[in-house]
Amino acid sequence: MDEASCPEWSLASQAEHGGDLSAARLAYPQAPSPWLDLSTGVNPYSYPFGELPPACWTKLPDSGELQALEAAAAVAYGVPAHAQVVAAPGSQAIINWLPRLLPARRVGILGFTYSEFARSWAATGAKLTIAAEPAALRDHDIAIVVNPNNPDGRLVAAQDLYALAAALVAHGGLLIVDEAFADFLPGASIVPEMPASGIMVLRSFGKTYGLPGLRLGFAIAPAEIGLRLRAAFGPWPVSGAAIAIGSRALLDDQWIAMIRNRLRSNGAALDKILAAAGFVMIGGTKLFRLVRHDAVQLLYQRLAQAGILTRRFEAKPDWLRFGIVAPGAGQTRLRAALGLIGDQNHNGG
Amino acid sequence: MDEASCPEWSLASQAEHGGDLSAARLAYPQAPSPWLDLSTGVNPYSYPFGELPPACWTKLPDSGELQALEAAAAVAYGVPAHAQVVAAPGSQAIINWLPRLLPARRVGILGFTYSEFARSWAATGAKLTIAAEPAALRDHDIAIVVNPNNPDGRLVAAQDLYALAAALVAHGGLLIVDEAFADFLPGASIVPEMPASGIMVLRSFGKTYGLPGLRLGFAIAPAEIGLRLRAAFGPWPVSGAAIAIGSRALLDDQWIAMIRNRLRSNGAALDKILAAAGFVMIGGTKLFRLVRHDAVQLLYQRLAQAGILTRRFEAKPDWLRFGIVAPGAGQTRLRAALGLIGDQNHNGG
Repeated sequence: MDEASCPEWSLASQAEHGGDLSAARLAYPQAPSPWLDLSTGVNPYSYPFGELPPACWTKLPDSGELQALEAAAAVAYGVPAHAQVVAAPGSQAIINWLPRLLPARRVGILGFTYSEFARSWAATGAKLTIAAEPAALRDHDIAIVVNPNNPDGRLVAAQDLYALAAALVAHGGLLIVDEAFADFLPGASIVPEMPASGIMVLRSFGKTYGLPGLRLGFAIAPAEIGLRLRAAFGPWPVSGAAIAIGSRALLDDQWIAMIRNRLRSNGAALDKILAAAGFVMIGGTKLFRLVRHDAVQLLYQRLAQAGILTRRFEAKPDWLRFGIVAPGAGQTRLRAALGLIGDQNHNGG
Repeated sequence: MDEASCPEWSLASQAEHGGDLSAARLAYPQAPSPWLDLSTGVNPYSYPFGELPPACWTKLPDSGELQALEAAAAVAYGVPAHAQVVAAPGSQAIINWLPRLLPARRVGILGFTYSEFARSWAATGAKLTIAAEPAALRDHDIAIVVNPNNPDGRLVAAQDLYALAAALVAHGGLLIVDEAFADFLPGASIVPEMPASGIMVLRSFGKTYGLPGLRLGFAIAPAEIGLRLRAAFGPWPVSGAAIAIGSRALLDDQWIAMIRNRLRSNGAALDKILAAAGFVMIGGTKLFRLVRHDAVQLLYQRLAQAGILTRRFEAKPDWLRFGIVAPGAGQTRLRAALGLIGDQNHNGG
């Protein structure tokens, strides 16, 4: 199992994602440690879950407790009674399974967006189209919309998604909406008014609650699709810790409201830093900002040399995505790496 | 999401498994709490992992740390250099994926055994055969052997499995060996001498280390199958906690050796209790015993009424499986429920 004997490893599983600090350390061995990871869309504030009961480790996850977790998600996401909530070890695990459960010839994706949908469907031989407008997805077997979109934050209006789903369902199609970044955008989710067929929605627990290491996500789906997902994930789909933490956090409205305010002010501070460094705003969500700059490749490297990991995009060489950074040392470090500290000192002194 | 609206839930995901205390509590509401769960093959001694680093929750699992986990598994299981180790959120998750990754028409299973292999392959329309001897599996596309077997502990000799794999590989077939219960049986594993093609092996972390809530298991497979599994599980296959705990525990030979001795003496004590209660031994492993009794259904209920959950088998109404019970309160409770306490008091006094 030495690295030389399995070069396919990195290609197969970690290419083109944020959050891979091991790869960053190898590429920039001189960078100061610890790294400041701004390469993901993960909430920098983690849900404070306290002590976990020992049984969440030492027992097989229990069907009643799993049902309670899914019921909490149903409350948190406003799931209508006709839809099923299915827990999975991360919404990525659902993305991996969908092409096997929902065979489709023509798959349309609203792009530019998160690459894993295309990768996953391409592996089953589907014909992929990347469309610029939702209406262009109507003739497909499966239409996929990340909403709000990653990385540009584009938000498709609910009525446009319902109209798309109605057109799809008329010929047996399905709309998949990935709402991984909808939690901090009240009113953006299409879940509460979703129809009984033609739409399924993905939600990410880890990004919103700052606990991506937990591996927890949900599908909200018509009953028949929910049944197929349950069979795919089997009797113990998520860990005992995911059940214990998720069941509490999903019902904690107060925490979400508090963090939403914090992210708003942190986002405004990040916007100022990025503007001062000459980046042009493209868009974003409460958890990240997407900016443009002619010298992105140089700036990416300069940041990496300072131990700050950001997210660039192979297909968009002048784009860079920054995760939200909490006030304090992180913001100072980012300002310094972008050459802004001198200005601040001068202004302050 | 009320229960009445989704009756398919229990059918789809928790039917016929051990460890479901929620279902037991519903069926036996008068039973004393907490239940003593002897219905699984999980080690009653959990690996003492201490404090976890906060980053295992707040960061996406890192590719370098995942590689270190798989390298630890390679050492622990004696994996030859030509094979790939692939981590998954429980060996059950691998069982769910295999029929999608390895399409097969004729699937043969050495039985009677763990039901999830048959369920999973049947869902893809494969023709299933349950065979009584390994040689009868030679003509299949996929042959599956749980070794040692669950529930009867039957151990097929390594040379018989190598011969079976050679016969399978000659016509493009594959042997899948589930070694979920091999960890406490030194020398039983076929991994160290496995050939470069024709065999894949599953290992369970949670059962051996008493941490089934963690959801961690491994496939050990020829390179090409390993690559398909990595693509199926995607960039973040297991939780940060699974990586942190697994990486340490798998290299802790001393703990395994200590627990093996403890399980041996606990198993001998359980054997005495079961014999005294009139059960006839069929077999087992270091983590459970399978016994026969004409009155199993009555005894199952009597135990459940005393808050002790055991494992029965729909197809074998006179079989009952007991997990190993640690000395002390658990053993006393089991003796009492089986009507043996009076004897003990009499003998002792």
